[in-house]
Amino acid sequence: MPRTADKSPLLAIDLDKASATPMHRQIFDQIRRAILTGRLVPGRRLPSSRVLADELGVSRNTVLAAFDQLLAEGYTEGRIGSGTRVADALPEDYLAARAGRERAMSGDHARKPRLSNVGRALQTAVPKTRIDPNRWAFRPGVPEVARFPWAHWSRLCAGFWRRPPLELIAGGATAGFKPLRAAIADYLGAVRGLACQAEQVIVTAGAQQAIDLAARALLNPGDKVWIEEPGYAGIRGVLTAVNAEMVPIAVDDAGIDVDAGIAIAPDARMAIVTPSHQYPLGSVMSLARRLALLEWARQTDAWILEDDYDSEYRYGGRPISALQGLDRDGRVIYCGTFSKVMFPTIRIGYLVVPLELVEPLAAVRSLIDDQTAIALQPVLAAFIESGHFAQHIRRMRTLYAERQDVILDALKSELSGALDVTPDESGMHLVAEIRPSASIWDADVAELAAARGLSISPLSRFFLGRPNRNGLLLGYAGIEARDIRTGVKKLARIFDDLD
Amino acid sequence: MPRTADKSPLLAIDLDKASATPMHRQIFDQIRRAILTGRLVPGRRLPSSRVLADELGVSRNTVLAAFDQLLAEGYTEGRIGSGTRVADALPEDYLAARAGRERAMSGDHARKPRLSNVGRALQTAVPKTRIDPNRWAFRPGVPEVARFPWAHWSRLCAGFWRRPPLELIAGGATAGFKPLRAAIADYLGAVRGLACQAEQVIVTAGAQQAIDLAARALLNPGDKVWIEEPGYAGIRGVLTAVNAEMVPIAVDDAGIDVDAGIAIAPDARMAIVTPSHQYPLGSVMSLARRLALLEWARQTDAWILEDDYDSEYRYGGRPISALQGLDRDGRVIYCGTFSKVMFPTIRIGYLVVPLELVEPLAAVRSLIDDQTAIALQPVLAAFIESGHFAQHIRRMRTLYAERQDVILDALKSELSGALDVTPDESGMHLVAEIRPSASIWDADVAELAAARGLSISPLSRFFLGRPNRNGLLLGYAGIEARDIRTGVKKLARIFDDLD
Repeated sequence: MPRTADKSPLLAIDLDKASATPMHRQIFDQIRRAILTGRLVPGRRLPSSRVLADELGVSRNTVLAAFDQLLAEGYTEGRIGSGTRVADALPEDYLAARAGRERAMSGDHARKPRLSNVGRALQTAVPKTRIDPNRWAFRPGVPEVARFPWAHWSRLCAGFWRRPPLELIAGGATAGFKPLRAAIADYLGAVRGLACQAEQVIVTAGAQQAIDLAARALLNPGDKVWIEEPGYAGIRGVLTAVNAEMVPIAVDDAGIDVDAGIAIAPDARMAIVTPSHQYPLGSVMSLARRLALLEWARQTDAWILEDDYDSEYRYGGRPISALQGLDRDGRVIYCGTFSKVMFPTIRIGYLVVPLELVEPLAAVRSLIDDQTAIALQPVLAAFIESGHFAQHIRRMRTLYAERQDVILDALKSELSGALDVTPDESGMHLVAEIRPSASIWDADVAELAAARGLSISPLSRFFLGRPNRNGLLLGYAGIEARDIRTGVKKLARIFDDLD
Repeated sequence: MPRTADKSPLLAIDLDKASATPMHRQIFDQIRRAILTGRLVPGRRLPSSRVLADELGVSRNTVLAAFDQLLAEGYTEGRIGSGTRVADALPEDYLAARAGRERAMSGDHARKPRLSNVGRALQTAVPKTRIDPNRWAFRPGVPEVARFPWAHWSRLCAGFWRRPPLELIAGGATAGFKPLRAAIADYLGAVRGLACQAEQVIVTAGAQQAIDLAARALLNPGDKVWIEEPGYAGIRGVLTAVNAEMVPIAVDDAGIDVDAGIAIAPDARMAIVTPSHQYPLGSVMSLARRLALLEWARQTDAWILEDDYDSEYRYGGRPISALQGLDRDGRVIYCGTFSKVMFPTIRIGYLVVPLELVEPLAAVRSLIDDQTAIALQPVLAAFIESGHFAQHIRRMRTLYAERQDVILDALKSELSGALDVTPDESGMHLVAEIRPSASIWDADVAELAAARGLSISPLSRFFLGRPNRNGLLLGYAGIEARDIRTGVKKLARIFDDLD
């Protein structure tokens, strides 16, 4: 049988008939690899399709399909029937070098990839918090997802998707789904005292993207930006990415110290603030400071980015109005999120911007990621309009107030010697200052806590400069009362061990 | 009645009892505005809550609620009962300036906002295409959304959301939902010839974000980047945003001219290519060019961004394997999207990157927008696993092939004198070159077409430099056969009128 001359150990193709990959693809892949690794050299004749089909126990059409593909992609030359050869046109030196580098494919990952300067800076811009989903206590900012009205939400989802408006599905809208923008404007006007129309609302994929969008559109490299000290660490990454110069400004019981900001960096291009409930300390910016901040922004043509991250949850008194509502000069860019009133992975947030910024920001947005997925926008709009949204907030407000009492009680009975905690009229976490007498560092507590199954953020991590506070951020909103009590007991043992 | 002395025309509060805004909020808002506009000056005594309640016909508690809020926000001073006054601490000069500027609030938007240089550049980086959702013919890249299996999709949505895994809802994952990453890796391995594991897949909010993410993490300002000429305009915005230098490299029937690239900019940091189906011309990059490109990237430590935007739709022959499958040196970053196989506003795409890039890119991503909304990821994973995905692609492939025949026939009978069109073995659009004899410019056709209800992209728009082609991009995939025929008739009249 002269045909056996065709047989080559190089072509010992190993077919996996149980694989999801079609036979012709497996044959193609293995011959291609043989060519690329130099096992089949240029000019080498392949066995005929008939021989190979016999040998492999597959139909000739299967082999022909593989051969077609090899030919189409330029690995082989010649006509089927008159013999198929490995193409001459392959750059030989490239192929020769192949065999030795085949290893690389299987995982030689020691080499450091060349990142951009920004890419490299971002690797360390923000302290990594590895969130273990099974460690709820005491992650801040996580709402109670177990009591979300999933049944209703699921029905709204199914309803929308059963027969979605096709022009919406095909086109979408960069600034967001219009009825959702309207629902957001109504909500913010009524509850947060904003002066805004639906046209000023830009729906984003969460607050982080909202801040990133504003930073890219408004900040030049080297521009100074006031940030609160201590403050939200996520801001630092955004500002690092646009090469802005961060100017930390101290925060006290009346919010960010505007006079200090003007003294240190009067020419800043932007101030990023949390006026309603300073993150993480919880203070409310005084009216005098608000007006002074607005006046500074007016005089210097600076922007104020108001991050209103958890103002829905206020247990005492009434919600403090947003700074935006005081702005008469189009200086305030207001940023909010549904992560905390709905659930974190909904990834829907929004900016409320002066009208003249809507189009410029939308243009930038269209190049970043075009638009927020339509996915849940109509469902969220319907959820708000149906009243379930307001009802859910009211329920959670009651629940979180109870949980704040639980954690306060537990801390009082277990840790009053070491921690100094005051109730907070709003929010989803408490700040517990470590008493100087305890002589224990917050970072040490956090580290030991992580090893023992607790997620605790040390207050020192929220400082860009040298921390002048030593304390712990204890989230309570998303944690069951019994887990709060168990967690506090664990925390007390940590303090004992560190003592 | 001495009480009338308290009454002041300045406090003529106008309550809207039908409004959704609560009474106390309306009272608060109007007094606050009176203070801010200077109608109520610092030190001015407010009427007592009792008097105001009588006057307004509301309960005293309602007025007290408004007064509480004014006090809490620092607009007023003093104790309720002993008299409430407008706060002295208000910066008087700020308030004095208010009244004159009140107008600004109601819409003086002539002023140009100060954008960043990047923000400004992006306003004009990409030609604006106003998409009218009612004009389907001949938008390129839009799939047929009317034949998507919505009923099945809706059931999957409802099923997921009825009882979603809470750790998923609360935490999510920066690189994406794991089962979806696995489904993508399987799909790409089997269908696109990629060599990849699930760990290499990063789920993004669409291809645009995927490219933006790669650009931010890998490109420094001033870095040169090869782009295809003509090529996808969305790339230009991304590169403008990171201040990269775009180097347009000509495309011919074998894809991007790698030798030209090496001659013009051997030191480029990245090449962005569409090897499987060049956008917009449709050519397939030859194997020799692919290997040459990989070799250049290996020698210079450059990155290759492979944009594999519509390779699912191949009507003749078999799909051409992805360039990524040939890469042995971890140089290729592969980018894909579900916009075209599912629907555009799903906003789910992905990067497949060398393993050593996964963590660095995820770190950058966490600062851009944290993660892709969980929303549809599990639903999409289930859709793929259930086999509906493959089935939908097969159905659409047949449908789009038919529609390509329809548009080819129509163009042949209506416009063969003016347009030169060749069938394309894949994709969702055709390129129709305007015959030189017609002496008509593509941009003129597009403009007139827009006025007559057609969406047509002129080929010249895809050039960064001087266009050397004069033609039209005609999408057909998402357009009903009868609309294709009507559209081509309209187009023929446009040519008649321009002649």
